[in-house]
Order: sequence, then structure tokens, then C-alpha cells
Amino acid sequence: MDPWTVTYDGFDPEEEKLREALCTLGNGYFATRGATPYTDADGGHYPGTYLAGGYNRLKTNIAGRVIENEDLVNLPNWLVLKLRMDDQWFDLGEVDILKYRQELDLKQGVLTRDIGYRDSKGRETEVVERRLVHMAEPHLAGMELTITPKNWSGQLEIRSALDGQVINGGVERYKTLSSHHLKPMETQSIDEETVFLRVRTSQSRITVAQAARTRIFDDDGMLDTHRKVIQKSGYIGQDMALALSEGKGVRIEKVVSMYTSQDHAIAECGLESGKAVLSAGGFEDLLVSHALSWKHLWERFEMGFRVKPEYEDDHTAMILHLNLFHLLQSTSIHTMDLDVGVPSRGWHGEAYRGHIFWDELFIFPMLNLQVPEITRSLLMYRYRRLNEARRAAEGAGFRGAMYPWQSGSNGREESQAVHLNPKSGRWIPDNSRLQRHVNAAIAYNIHQYNECTGDTEFLSFYGAEMILEIARFWASTTTYNRELDRYEILGVMGPDEYHDMYPEAERAGLNNNAYTNIMTAWVLKQALNVLALLPEDRTRELREILRLDQKETDQWDEISRKMRVVFHDDGIISQFEGYDQLEEFDWEGYSEKYGDIQRLDRILEAEDDT
Amino acid sequence: MDPWTVTYDGFDPEEEKLREALCTLGNGYFATRGATPYTDADGGHYPGTYLAGGYNRLKTNIAGRVIENEDLVNLPNWLVLKLRMDDQWFDLGEVDILKYRQELDLKQGVLTRDIGYRDSKGRETEVVERRLVHMAEPHLAGMELTITPKNWSGQLEIRSALDGQVINGGVERYKTLSSHHLKPMETQSIDEETVFLRVRTSQSRITVAQAARTRIFDDDGMLDTHRKVIQKSGYIGQDMALALSEGKGVRIEKVVSMYTSQDHAIAECGLESGKAVLSAGGFEDLLVSHALSWKHLWERFEMGFRVKPEYEDDHTAMILHLNLFHLLQSTSIHTMDLDVGVPSRGWHGEAYRGHIFWDELFIFPMLNLQVPEITRSLLMYRYRRLNEARRAAEGAGFRGAMYPWQSGSNGREESQAVHLNPKSGRWIPDNSRLQRHVNAAIAYNIHQYNECTGDTEFLSFYGAEMILEIARFWASTTTYNRELDRYEILGVMGPDEYHDMYPEAERAGLNNNAYTNIMTAWVLKQALNVLALLPEDRTRELREILRLDQKETDQWDEISRKMRVVFHDDGIISQFEGYDQLEEFDWEGYSEKYGDIQRLDRILEAEDDT
Repeated sequence: MDPWTVTYDGFDPEEEKLREALCTLGNGYFATRGATPYTDADGGHYPGTYLAGGYNRLKTNIAGRVIENEDLVNLPNWLVLKLRMDDQWFDLGEVDILKYRQELDLKQGVLTRDIGYRDSKGRETEVVERRLVHMAEPHLAGMELTITPKNWSGQLEIRSALDGQVINGGVERYKTLSSHHLKPMETQSIDEETVFLRVRTSQSRITVAQAARTRIFDDDGMLDTHRKVIQKSGYIGQDMALALSEGKGVRIEKVVSMYTSQDHAIAECGLESGKAVLSAGGFEDLLVSHALSWKHLWERFEMGFRVKPEYEDDHTAMILHLNLFHLLQSTSIHTMDLDVGVPSRGWHGEAYRGHIFWDELFIFPMLNLQVPEITRSLLMYRYRRLNEARRAAEGAGFRGAMYPWQSGSNGREESQAVHLNPKSGRWIPDNSRLQRHVNAAIAYNIHQYNECTGDTEFLSFYGAEMILEIARFWASTTTYNRELDRYEILGVMGPDEYHDMYPEAERAGLNNNAYTNIMTAWVLKQALNVLALLPEDRTRELREILRLDQKETDQWDEISRKMRVVFHDDGIISQFEGYDQLEEFDWEGYSEKYGDIQRLDRILEAEDDT
Repeated sequence: MDPWTVTYDGFDPEEEKLREALCTLGNGYFATRGATPYTDADGGHYPGTYLAGGYNRLKTNIAGRVIENEDLVNLPNWLVLKLRMDDQWFDLGEVDILKYRQELDLKQGVLTRDIGYRDSKGRETEVVERRLVHMAEPHLAGMELTITPKNWSGQLEIRSALDGQVINGGVERYKTLSSHHLKPMETQSIDEETVFLRVRTSQSRITVAQAARTRIFDDDGMLDTHRKVIQKSGYIGQDMALALSEGKGVRIEKVVSMYTSQDHAIAECGLESGKAVLSAGGFEDLLVSHALSWKHLWERFEMGFRVKPEYEDDHTAMILHLNLFHLLQSTSIHTMDLDVGVPSRGWHGEAYRGHIFWDELFIFPMLNLQVPEITRSLLMYRYRRLNEARRAAEGAGFRGAMYPWQSGSNGREESQAVHLNPKSGRWIPDNSRLQRHVNAAIAYNIHQYNECTGDTEFLSFYGAEMILEIARFWASTTTYNRELDRYEILGVMGPDEYHDMYPEAERAGLNNNAYTNIMTAWVLKQALNVLALLPEDRTRELREILRLDQKETDQWDEISRKMRVVFHDDGIISQFEGYDQLEEFDWEGYSEKYGDIQRLDRILEAEDDT
């Protein structure tokens, strides 16, 4: 088993969407799903390109309500490279596939698709695709198609385009929601071989500019093909035609650049996008510098491990590499200069809308040891949204800063307040935002970063203020139980998302969730440590800025020592107060009845149960 | 002499523009000149508001050429607060001024203007203005006008507006150039007391959103005044009217927010701008947090010094504070999260177009010792433009990276290739871009930052690559003089801008400028030091990325030891080769003939001389 290659043999329409997700290529700045270049979005294929932090809000009228969602926007599809041979558009569904091998080279970050097929007229053709999203030049991507007619000669027509007519359609359960995020702005031919597209997102007004240069080569060099420009609203492409000779391959190269209005160091994103593609080398040049970047990444991030002989055929090594690969495509070296967080599903697709939950907790340990500067910039994503978190705390009747469970562009709570249950057709309250423990995670992450790097400047300028405001928030959420002489936190959700309130209760949330309470004690203690750790001058500054007096920090100390932790009778910590009074769930019965019980919450709600 | 206050007594129309520049308030994010709120731009007054890094390019057809300039854009004027008393608009030029005292409080960052006047009808009125551009909340500014009718009662009308109809008109010698940078986009009333304006720059497409909330108070509290909204293209304001009673003051508060599409952590700049002003406190609240920020800045940056008794009446202390004050308004704590450099004239006006020359060389020593994080972010401005500098080097036939003499949005050379001499009406070549020594300054600044902070992470990720590419550039500019066994640099300009070429020479530039050659030797040596200083892994990475082999660095070592330095016969280092053969200039004769000989270059060119 090659530990550096994900290999798929054969074409399986049913599996295609999963393959596309797993074969996503990205560089932390943008990501493109592993969809074929010759197919538009349909039931089986879904080309998707996403910008790190490229959000847009849309309102939807649905079942009597207006709800607003902030989505990760599907940007113009730069992949489009359609092939027509003697009047037949190449479509995997309409040919006999003779060979089909798809490989994701994790070491070099290259996706290859090697296809041989026979069409209805008996013509056999080989189409080999290579693709990269450049890891050294984050605004560049490239694709190469080599087409060889094995047993025929004839005409090949090619359409190479930038398609900004795409919508957000990647997630089945979002299908009823508004999905037209892009407004067309401009299409243009930059030169003979280069087309340019400008669109912008409707609400967030992010301008996105793409330029694409297409070249065709045979063994003797570049072909001077006639090109016809196809311009539609939000779409520009070129149609090219050439004669193929039996056994002789031609190679099509498409080099694409993308810039947006959010980028640094630009005079204007359209201008930069054009400039970048005009000065970019060919696919092979790009591949060399791209692969070198990946080589350097792996030199940093590869883990030393040995697989026992009896597991040699196991996928373990490949799976580990695949996971690291996608982490490094989501939080890359280029993240260091962006204003983004750690999205729970990478920038790989539309599910979870590219939102930032608490997943950084699980990612930072890896980054901290290799490139802590990435962690630092991801923590800055939180610092920049501190004021929004303060507003949220105030709005909920608390003090300090309350970071949202789901965070997007400006740090507003992006969790929906209600969800339409497709099983029951009812609106059900979504209590997931009561997972306030994301705040403890942020404080913990700052602490860990500081422990790993000793970067007290970050702590001093940014980290401390966040930890102190989060501590203040937690302190304000506690209530004193005089009888027990303990502080309690009522009405929250722990990380266990299946338990969000008590049976028959009117108020959402649970009381004294052990994880939350213990982390609260830790955060309060940590806040006091930070005040002791920083230079006296800075501590005084912070106390003045935050109006944080001795009385308040004394109170933190008091609370940190007296947080309530509920135990079961046998001395085991209870997940939350009252957990031991819940009935055991009928696992077997439900599994038999429903088969897949992954969305048990929805099944139960449809049964009027929880 | 109060060392913390700049004081002007009396109104002097001639001096007003200088006062406006010196009384500019800013916070590193934006800056606003100290112009009065009741006057539009005219000969004597020039309200100007500038965004750090807020550039736009415009082309001008002039004297048979099309030239393009990248300007620092004058943004919508948020100051507008005009007063009309019984049908007479308040205009300093049309009243008898009884008292006039303008004070810039350097300690708190507050500008005050205390005016008493008598109008043509004998009415005496006092108008006291206070103003701040918030140092803690960089998107906020505030103004307060207190109006007291001393000997009359009657009607006061007020117009409070956001004026996006402004142009770039602040610099006399740019007057013939295109100056309309802003395109109107939207005007809107957010609520009863708040107006909103959106414009965008024409080429760079930076969207700028401002919101302004105006409130009027008397001793009993807020007044519920009737408001009429005035909406024009690129302009929105409110007209308010109220009755004044003799001796009773009213206080007008205007709180303004500004966001742009370049900001981090926004859902959309218009939305954030409205939100910010809606949740902002009153002027007095803003003043408290603003003054606290300045207090903390001064605790860091105030220098300990004593003035000798005989100089006690001297301005020394005040001047030192004033200079620090403007530095801290130009490269502030908020710079840390922006993509900007050190502009040679701050963000205070339009002269030099907000361009980045080599001035950081003189500013960094102060920042390095107090808040080196600011230096770091200013160095990142250079790193982000490394690719552009590479393109420039290649375009000029060199290798490595050649940073421009004047840098703006994307790091392109913004120096003009030719200048129209207003004295002669001729286009003269502008050789100032031959001041390649800016590159040595950048390398030197990286080195200094590293020496002060020991931040080898910055050196490793960003600094080293710049130093190496600059070293490579310098090496490629040298030519070997076999006869002398020395390396030479021909055709550059040193920091002395009056010597840009030899008399009668055809080629611009000078040979073997001592400053340039010595700094080149230093840069090459420094580049070798950096390679030795970094961890071996990173050195290997950098050598691979830059394709920098041992032969090339050996060559650097060789050149660094054999740069030519020209001496005069008396053993003094010559400014450049041939300096000792120049005739002495007729200083007295020219001073007598022209009086002001500050722009001697233009005087001489008009005489067909250099």
C-alpha cells in the first residue's frame, strides 16, 4: 500500500461526490473540489471552489419565516474544460470506460485522472488530467489535459471557460435555501489566450477576479489555434478546434489566477489577477515550485511512525497522510496572512458553511509544534472579533466576551436559532449555541500557544485581553448556591450535542455540565495567572482598559475554587446535574426501526420525543 | 511653555493650511486634517480625511502625455457641521473675531478651538469645538461644538453632513492632474439621528462607508429637534433648527464611524459602520477611552529629558512631543493589523501621495525599542510586495528583488518617469527612482528589527527571503573593474537628490556612489550572516526555493570584500566618482537672483542647466 497516494480504480457515479471532497486541492487561500473539468454540477458531479473566509449572507423565506444564513460561497468554476470529438461532447456516462484510475498524490499535492474509453462510434481515446492548486503562489492553479486518439483521427473541439453562473448547491439539506450568492460584473479578453471574469458576492461585496490562460501543445510545441470567445453574463470562455491524428496526443494547459478585494498588496484585484496569469510559467514550471513547497511542508509535518508487519496492508499510513494533507490545505502557511479561523470541514465544501466552531482545539496541537505562527494568526481571527463577542455577552445579559458557537465573517453568532426538521416539517429550536464552552476552548488555545512558543508579546497585546474577557464572561454566568457553598452554571450545553435540555423542561440547556464547570474554574485560574505573568506595566494598562479591579479578580479566585462538580453515587463525575436520572435509550429498538440513527435528534423530534 | 500643548492665538488665514496639517488627528487607521467643520475646501481651508493605505490611480492627459498617478485619496469629509444664526452662515472671514484660541492637546489627542466673535448685526457668540479621532476604537471619531449666544436670542440652524463630493485638491502643484477619485454609491438614513454614506474609489475599488450620528443637548439633556434629511449624490446630511436663548449654550455632538472594504472581521463595511455608530457612546465617553489609550502610549513612548534653565522658554519639549505625536498617529498600535508602510508625510495630506519611500529607516529605531510589533507589521508591507520587486528587478535586467523608490498599493514603482517643470513647461526625466539604496535600507531595517527583538521566526519566514533577494539584486548590479580588482555600481543616485547625473552625460545616474557601494557590501555580508544564523533546515529550504547555490553566495562574499570606494586626494571618501571634478555652485548669486532656491532643480532646468 503506497502511503502517499489515494487511489481509485474505476468510475463510480455514486461515489463521485465523496471522491470530489477527498480529492479537493487547496492552499489555505482557496480550495477546489476534485470534480472533473468536463462536467457541470449535476446529480453526480459538483465542481466547487471556495475562498478561505469567503462568506456571504442570504435571506430565505421558508415555511413562514425569514431566516438568514451566512454561507461559504461557491466561487466561479475555473475547471471548465470541455471536450468534443467529432460532434460528441465527452461525457463519462455515455462511453465505455476501458480504464479509469484517479490518484491523489499527497506528497506533491497533485490530482491525476487517467481515463481510457470507447465511444459509441468505436473510437478509443485516452484522457489524462493533472491538476494543482499552487502551494507557493496561493493565487495560482493549473490543470493539464492530455488527449490521445488511440484508433482514430478527426476533429477535437475544446471549450475552456470561467463559469460564474454557479450557485451554492452542494448540500442536499440546504436545497430549499437561497443560493445565488454571485453577481456578474465583468467579462473580458485580456489577450489572445487569456480570459477574465469578475463577479462579486451579493451582500458581503467581496469582488472575485479570475483570469485563465489556455494553451495547446503537440509534440512540436505550442499550437496556434483559432479561438472564439464565448461571453455570457458571469461567464467567459474560448472555443478552440484542432485536428487530431491517430496515436498523437495533444496537451491542453490551463493556468488560472484568482484574487479578491480582501487581498493585501493589491492595486485592484482584477489587475493583479491578470498580471499574475500573464507572468505565470507553464504547468510544468508551476508543478516544480508547487511540489517543492509540499516537500518542505512534509519535511516539517511528516510524523515518524512504523506500521507493524501484520498491518502492512492497512491504510493507516495513507490515512494519516491524507488527514495531514487536508489540514495543511485548510490551515496552510498562507493562512498566516489571512483573517480566517479553522473551519470544521476545511474550505472543502458547503456543509457547515465554512463556519468556525471549536475545532481549532484539535488542530492547534499539531500546528503549535511545527509552525506556531499559523496558530498565532488563527488566534488573531478571534482577537479581531473580540468586540463582537463583547456585544454578544451584553446582549445575553452577561459581562465580558461571549464568542459564538458558529463564527463566520464578523464574529456574529451564525448558529440558527431554529431549524426546520425535514422529517416532521416543524421548526425546532436549535440550542447548539448554548455550547458556550467554545469560550473555554479559545482561552485554552491561547494558553497552549503561549506554553509552546513563549510568545509573551502575543499574550501581552492580544491573548491576555481575550482570556480576561472570557474569564469575566464565565464569572458572570455563575450563580452562587448558598446551601452548597458552590458556584453553578445553569442552562448550557456541553460538548455532548444530544443532550441539550431536560425532559419536559421549559428552559433550554442543562445545569452544571461537568466539562463546562471544570473549564470555567480553569479559565478563571488562568486569567489570574496571566495577570501575574505579564509585566507590571501591561497588567496595569489592561486593568485600566478593562476596568478590572482587585475586587473582581478576587471574586474570580473565589469562584475558581468553588465551582460545582456533580458526582454520581459511585464517585464518577456526572456529565451534568440529573444525568443519572435519565432513562437508558433503546438503542437496539431504534436501530432496528430506522437503520441509520445518526440524526437521532431528528428522528426523536418527529416522534415528539427527545 | 506647556510642553504638551500646541497653541495658536488668533486666526490667520494665511497660516491656516499649515495649522490644519500640524493639527491633524489620526490613529494609524485614518487621519483628518485640523480644518474647521463649518468651512468647505476653499483657498484658505482644506478639510481632508485619509485612510492608511487608501490609494487610487488616475490617468491625466497633460501636455501631450498620459501619465498615471497613484494618490492617497481624500475621503468623504465627516467634519461638516455648519451653523446659521438668524439666516447668516457662520464664516470666520465675515465676522469680528473677539477671541480665537486653538489648542492641540498632545497628551490626550484632542483638538480644541475656542472662538468668540461679533457678527455684522452686533450679535456676540462663542463657539467651542473639541475633536478626536479615536485611538482605542480606530473606526470612530467624534466632535463636539458648544454654541453660546452671549448677547442675543434667536434661531440656530445646523447642517451636519457626510460630504463625499470632495476631490483631491490639497496640493497646489498637483492641480492640473485628475482629482476625482470617489464614485458615489449610496446615501441612507439609518435612524432619526444617523445618516450613512457609501462611496468607492474609482480604480482601486475600495468601498468606504461612513455613518454619522448627530445629537443636540442643552443643560437639561438631549433636545428632540426636527430634522430634515439632505440627500445628494455622494452627500447626505441633516438640517436641524432650534431656538437659542441669550447666555444659554447648546452642545452638538457628532459621532462618526468609518469602515472600508479592506478591513478585517467585517460582514460588509456598510453594515459594520452603521453598527459601530449605533453602539458608540457619547463624545464624553469616547473621550475617556481615547485619552486612556493616549495615556498608555505616552507611558511607553515619552522620553526622559531635561531642558536647561536658559532654554526653558524654548519649544524643544513641545516640538519633541509633537513629532512623537504625529509618528504615533501615522504608525500606531492599529498599524499592527494593517497592510501599510511608513509614509513620508504620515497619512496627513496629499503631498507625496502617501507614498512609502525609505523613511522607515528613521522611524523604526523608535518603534523597535517600544513596540517592535509595529515594525514587524511595517516590514510585512515589504514582504507582501516581494514578488512585485522581483518583477521590477527582472524588468530592469537585474536579478533578485528591486524595491521601488516610491511604493503604494501593490509595490509597483510609483515614481514618475518624467515631471513637467512648471517653470520651463518642459518634461524632464525624473531620475529619483535610481535611488536604489532604498533596498539597502529595507535589508538594514530587517537586520535592526532582528537585533532588537531576537524574533528569528520573522527572520526565518519573511526577513531572510527579502535580505537574500536584495543581496542578489545588488550583486547583479555590480560590474567588475579588472584594472582595479574592484566591483562597481554604475548609474544610480545616492541619497543626495540634487546629484542625479553627470554634466553633459547621456545616461542618468552616478557611478560608485559611496553610500550605495558601502551599503551593498554590508547587505551582501549580512545575507551570508543570515544563512549562517538560521536553522540548517530553513537555510536549505531557502536555498532550494531561491535556487541559491554555493557558487552564488561565494560570489557575494567576493563582491562584499571588493566594492569600490572612491576617495578624494585628501583621503576623504568621495560622495561619488567624479564628485571632486564638479564646480562649486554659485550659492550667493542664485539666492540673490531667486530668493527661495529650495527647488533649485527646477530653477536650473529652466535655465537649461543642472
